[in-house]
Parts: sequence; C-alpha cells; structure tokens
Amino acid sequence: MARVVVDVMPKQEILDPQGQAVANALPRLGFDGVSSVRQGKRFELEVDDSVDDAALAKIAETLLTNTVIEDFTVRRVES
Amino acid sequence: MARVVVDVMPKQEILDPQGQAVANALPRLGFDGVSSVRQGKRFELEVDDSVDDAALAKIAETLLTNTVIEDFTVRRVES
Repeated sequence: MARVVVDVMPKQEILDPQGQAVANALPRLGFDGVSSVRQGKRFELEVDDSVDDAALAKIAETLLTNTVIEDFTVRRVES
Repeated sequence: MARVVVDVMPKQEILDPQGQAVANALPRLGFDGVSSVRQGKRFELEVDDSVDDAALAKIAETLLTNTVIEDFTVRRVES
C-alpha cells in the first residue's frame, strides 16, 4: 500500500471567489499581511503498489480535476 | 513575501462522503487498486514576512478549518 496525495488548484488566470472571500475576510478579523489566498482541493488516496504513476495521473486528470480551470499535482508520500 | 500552504482534511473518525463518492466511482471507471479516498481543502497564502507562525496557526484555526470535524497543517514553502 502506498499513500498518494493529489493537489488540485485553480489555474493562475482563473478567478477564485472562495479564496478571495477568505482574503477579504482576514483584515476584518484583525489579520493583516496576507496579500493573496487561493483555495483548492487535496485528495489523499490509499493505493495498491500495483497502481503505477500513469494510472494515478489518469485518475487525477479524469476524476479529480476539471482540467479546464484547474491544475493538479500527484505525489507519493511515506505512509 | 512567503508562500504558506494550509492543508485541511476531515478527521479520521469523520465520514467523508465526497471522498467515498470518488472511491466508489473509480472501479466503475476502470481504475482498480484504490482502497480509500479522502477529500479535503488546500489553501495557498501569500503573506508578508512580518506574519509569524502563531498568526498563521490562528488564521488556519479560526477561518480555514472547522475544528470540530477537520484537522489542519500549516507549512511554509519556497516561493
């Protein structure tokens, strides 16, 4: 078994209203010095060792990411 | 300026219907060997160097995480 993390973030040129809402709320709550917030998704998968990197990329691309507006990264971590 | 990543994941004992939906969809789409999927959130913040770790933890705890059902980790990354 291996643990895999897939990070999915909105592309740089895409507006991110959730992140902007957080960024706008921070000064109101007394937190200064944060100039930008972007919000994305993080998936943690437990996979068999038989699952190779190509299959993981395919899973991330077809099921976890909307590739029109999001970018993804796949990495294996120690479990 | 520093880049900070905050990962927010559902606690282990909390049901994660979004992750389960992904896990159930995978075999239907022809991907075998994934035994568990959990879905959380990832935030990327651009912060001034004046913002210390205590302030970052406070931001993550009060604004980004529902601490009843979620755990968070904060880490600085190279920008």
